Amino acid sequence: MTFKLIVSCLLLTVCFAALGQEKQSPKAKKHSSAVVEKGLIKVSVMYPFAEGKTFDIAYYENKHMPMVAGFLGSNLVKYTIEKGISSGIPNQPLPYMAIGTFYVKSLSDYQAAIGPNRDAIRADFANYTTITPVILVSEVVR
Amino acid sequence: MTFKLIVSCLLLTVCFAALGQEKQSPKAKKHSSAVVEKGLIKVSVMYPFAEGKTFDIAYYENKHMPMVAGFLGSNLVKYTIEKGISSGIPNQPLPYMAIGTFYVKSLSDYQAAIGPNRDAIRADFANYTTITPVILVSEVVR
Repeated sequence: MTFKLIVSCLLLTVCFAALGQEKQSPKAKKHSSAVVEKGLIKVSVMYPFAEGKTFDIAYYENKHMPMVAGFLGSNLVKYTIEKGISSGIPNQPLPYMAIGTFYVKSLSDYQAAIGPNRDAIRADFANYTTITPVILVSEVVR
Repeated sequence: MTFKLIVSCLLLTVCFAALGQEKQSPKAKKHSSAVVEKGLIKVSVMYPFAEGKTFDIAYYENKHMPMVAGFLGSNLVKYTIEKGISSGIPNQPLPYMAIGTFYVKSLSDYQAAIGPNRDAIRADFANYTTITPVILVSEVVR
């Protein structure tokens, strides 16, 4: 009977320990996916639309962006790709054909990671576009 | 001794049931906060930088954006605000002073909601900026 009591106590301890760990994980995941963007640095690589210019978004999504993301390591929180549809103002031309955005914790770490790989990144441009991009560095306020 | 055995079994069942519930919740939270952006429409209101132009980001964050967001109802998934820091290309001017972005499910619902409120939105511009914005409508690819 003493043995059963000890086993029961041990099992209970294990169960509560497991529960405690499970309780932490949703918080951690919620924090990393939804709340964390404020304060991050965005590096937005914006490809202006112009007649006759080309942009291969499949190559951009499957090859170019994963390559650049691979250079950034744990400084990269996430990256996004958007495809331009139209101007939001009637009778205005489409401002950008596409925008790729890196959300990073540190701008200096981003620059240090990109520096030695700049030639490889630029050499890949010809594989998907004839557009020279504009780059905006911004801070997520909300 | 039989009583202790039954109590142990009951406690174990309760613990495993609790564990099962805890295991489901991170998935649900992850799904609702992180995965949902792909396929959404972004309406990005971009304020180009120019010497002498002004932009009051506190008013924009506390008054203007909440007002516009209020017109959009359940079509609005989220909205973000970013503050321009620099160009990502050396010796180039800052492309945008600020960008406000609405992530919506439907562009036509967005247009239908903004239409009757366009005058109120434009009248509020003078309260925070002297810049005429560029508006990009895009689709979240990734």
